Amino acid sequence: MSRVFNFSAGPASLPLPVLQRAAAEMAEYGSSGMSVMEMSHRGKDFLEIFRRTKQAVIDLLGVPETHEVLFLQGGASTQFAMVPMNLMGNVGKADYVNTGSWSKKAIKEAKKFGAVNVAATSEETHFNRIPRQDELRLDPRAAYCHITSNNTIFGTEYHYTPETGAVPLVADASSNLMSRPVDVARYGILYAGAQKNLGPAGVTLVIIRKDLLGRAPDTIPAMLDYRVHADADSMYNTPPTYAIYILGLVCGWLQERGGLAAMEEINIRKAQRLYDCIDATGFYRCPTEPASRSRMNVPFTLVNADLDATFLAEAAAAGLVTLKGHRSVGGMRASLYNAMPEEGVAALVAFLQDFEQRHG
Amino acid sequence: MSRVFNFSAGPASLPLPVLQRAAAEMAEYGSSGMSVMEMSHRGKDFLEIFRRTKQAVIDLLGVPETHEVLFLQGGASTQFAMVPMNLMGNVGKADYVNTGSWSKKAIKEAKKFGAVNVAATSEETHFNRIPRQDELRLDPRAAYCHITSNNTIFGTEYHYTPETGAVPLVADASSNLMSRPVDVARYGILYAGAQKNLGPAGVTLVIIRKDLLGRAPDTIPAMLDYRVHADADSMYNTPPTYAIYILGLVCGWLQERGGLAAMEEINIRKAQRLYDCIDATGFYRCPTEPASRSRMNVPFTLVNADLDATFLAEAAAAGLVTLKGHRSVGGMRASLYNAMPEEGVAALVAFLQDFEQRHG
Repeated sequence: MSRVFNFSAGPASLPLPVLQRAAAEMAEYGSSGMSVMEMSHRGKDFLEIFRRTKQAVIDLLGVPETHEVLFLQGGASTQFAMVPMNLMGNVGKADYVNTGSWSKKAIKEAKKFGAVNVAATSEETHFNRIPRQDELRLDPRAAYCHITSNNTIFGTEYHYTPETGAVPLVADASSNLMSRPVDVARYGILYAGAQKNLGPAGVTLVIIRKDLLGRAPDTIPAMLDYRVHADADSMYNTPPTYAIYILGLVCGWLQERGGLAAMEEINIRKAQRLYDCIDATGFYRCPTEPASRSRMNVPFTLVNADLDATFLAEAAAAGLVTLKGHRSVGGMRASLYNAMPEEGVAALVAFLQDFEQRHG
Repeated sequence: MSRVFNFSAGPASLPLPVLQRAAAEMAEYGSSGMSVMEMSHRGKDFLEIFRRTKQAVIDLLGVPETHEVLFLQGGASTQFAMVPMNLMGNVGKADYVNTGSWSKKAIKEAKKFGAVNVAATSEETHFNRIPRQDELRLDPRAAYCHITSNNTIFGTEYHYTPETGAVPLVADASSNLMSRPVDVARYGILYAGAQKNLGPAGVTLVIIRKDLLGRAPDTIPAMLDYRVHADADSMYNTPPTYAIYILGLVCGWLQERGGLAAMEEINIRKAQRLYDCIDATGFYRCPTEPASRSRMNVPFTLVNADLDATFLAEAAAAGLVTLKGHRSVGGMRASLYNAMPEEGVAALVAFLQDFEQRHG
C-alpha cells in the first residue's frame, strides 16, 4: 500500500520530505558516521542540530529576547502540573478558561497546587464554542490565566488572544502552535506537545517569559522546575534527541513553505473547504459554532449514525484513515495539521460528496 | 565517511540492523501507509507495536506476574523524584547507597521528600568501588533502599544484588539493564533511561512491583504517579511512540542474539579484553578496583596526560569516537553497551597498543 491521508488528531501526519530525509540520514548523519539517535547530546554534532532547531523555532514564531525556548518531556499533561507548581507562588490562585477535556485536566491538576477560578466555561453547550473576551470573569490578582488555544476533541479554537492585563497568559497550544502566526510577547507561557504540528510525540516545546523563571519553590522536583531547564539550555538531563532532530526538520520544512503566515493561509483554505462541504447539505453536521471553529480539528457527524461504520470502512478503503471521532464524543473527526496536504482535504471532500450521493 | 565505532556513554550506539530496519520502514510501516511516528497511539498498528515491545521486555528480563512494565518519559532524573514521591509515604525515610554522581543526584532529590540515610558510600576513595553487602548500614524500617546498579561516570558496577530483607530494593539501572540477566523479583523498582542499552533517549523503562503502586498521595502530579501510568498501561497521555518502537526493535535484536545470558557472555568478553589491555603496561591506568569494575563503562587515563589531545585526535581519525572522559573526571572512557560489537573493542585495543608503541 502507498501512503494514506492520515487525519489522526495526534500523533499525526508528518511532511513526507521530512520522513524521507530522516530515513536517508538514519544510519549516518552527515559526516558523523552515526545516527542522530546514537549521538551524545553534549557532542558537537548534536549541539549543532539543537542550536539550529532552537533558532528555527525562534525565527518561525518570532520569539522575542524576553522569552526562553525549552525542549522538555512529558507532554502537555506534565505542563498541567508544572505551570501551577512554578507560578502559583504565594498568590495561590489562578484563572482557567474551561473549553473542553484538556482544560478540565489542566484544572484538575492545578487544584492540587492552589485555588482555581474558572473564568469562563462553555460546558453548558457541550464545549461547542470559545467564550468571548467580554465573558471572561478574570481575577486581576490571579497568578496567571490559563487557556487551551485549540481543543482537539471538541474542534474549537481561539481566534483572538485574551487580554489579561498584568496577569500572565498561559496557553496550552499543543494542537495549533505553528499553524498560524502568534504574538509570543503576549504570553507568559506557551506550551505544546510536538505530536500535532511540530514533530513526533516525546518532546514538548515550552516558550516562557524569562521573568517567570525561578518562581518555583526549591521543594519541587528539579525536572519540574522551568529554571533548572532554562539554566541548562534544555540539557539538564539527556533530552529526547531524536524527537528534537525531527522537530528541527519540520521547522525547516515550514520555513521552506514560507513560514507561519503562509501556513495560516493554507490552513484557512483547507479548513474552509471541509467546513463548506459539511455545511452544504443536511447529510453531515458540524456541532461547533462557526465563529469558534478550529482550523486544526474538524468534528462532524453523519445525521444517520447507522452509516458510521460503513463511512469509516469506505473511507479507509479510499486511503483516508483515522477519521473516527474521539471516544468521548463519537462521530468523525478530521485533523488538518500543517502536514496534511491540500490534496488530502480535496480527497476527503470528494469522498464526503460521493458517500452522500450513494447513501443520502 | 562510513560508520564509526562510537564509545559514547549515552545516547549510545544502536545495532545497525535496527537502524536499517527503521530507515526502511520510516515512511511506510507494514501495510499502514504511514510512519510509526504518525500513528495514533490508540490505533491498532501502534497498539500492536506496543504489545509486542512490552512482551519482549517481559520475556527478555523474565519479569514475573508480580511486576508491571511501564514506558515513561523524563529519564532517570524524573525517577529520582518519582521514587520518593511514590514510596516515602508515612515512613518518611529511605536508604541510599552513594556510588557516584548519579547516586548523589538521586539523594539530593529524595531529600526534598523525606529523610535520607546514606547506607554506604565510596566517596572517600573517589567512587572507585562498590560497597560490599557487609558495609551496608541498612535501616530495617526504611521505605526503600536505592542503589545505582552501574555508574557511568566512575565505571563501577554491582556484581551482586544487595539483600535488603523486607525493604524494597530500588535500582537506577539506566546503564546496565539488559546487559545481563537480572532477578527482577528481588527488586521493588528497576528503572532505566533507554539511551544506553535499550534504545534512543526519550523513553524510560520502569519495572515496578505491583504492591508498590498506589502508595502516592493524590496531591502529587498525575504524571508522577506510577499507579496512573499502570492503570492506563502507559497510555495515560501520549507516550513517546517512536522511541518505544525503536526499543522494541532493539529487544528483537537482543532476542535474535540469544537473550541476556548470551549478551552477558559477550559483554564479559568485551570488557575483559579492554581491561586486560589497559592493565598490561604502565602506559594506561584504570582507576577502579578490579572487583567493582563496570562491563559497560571503562574509564582510563594516559599516565602522561599531555598526550590526551593527541590520543583523542588519532582515535577519531581511526574511526574510534566519543572516547573523552566525563567532564567531571577527565581522561578517557569507553562505553561498551550491548550494541558495541566485539570488532569495535578489538579495534580499540589494537589502537591502544599501537598508540602506546608510538608514544610510549
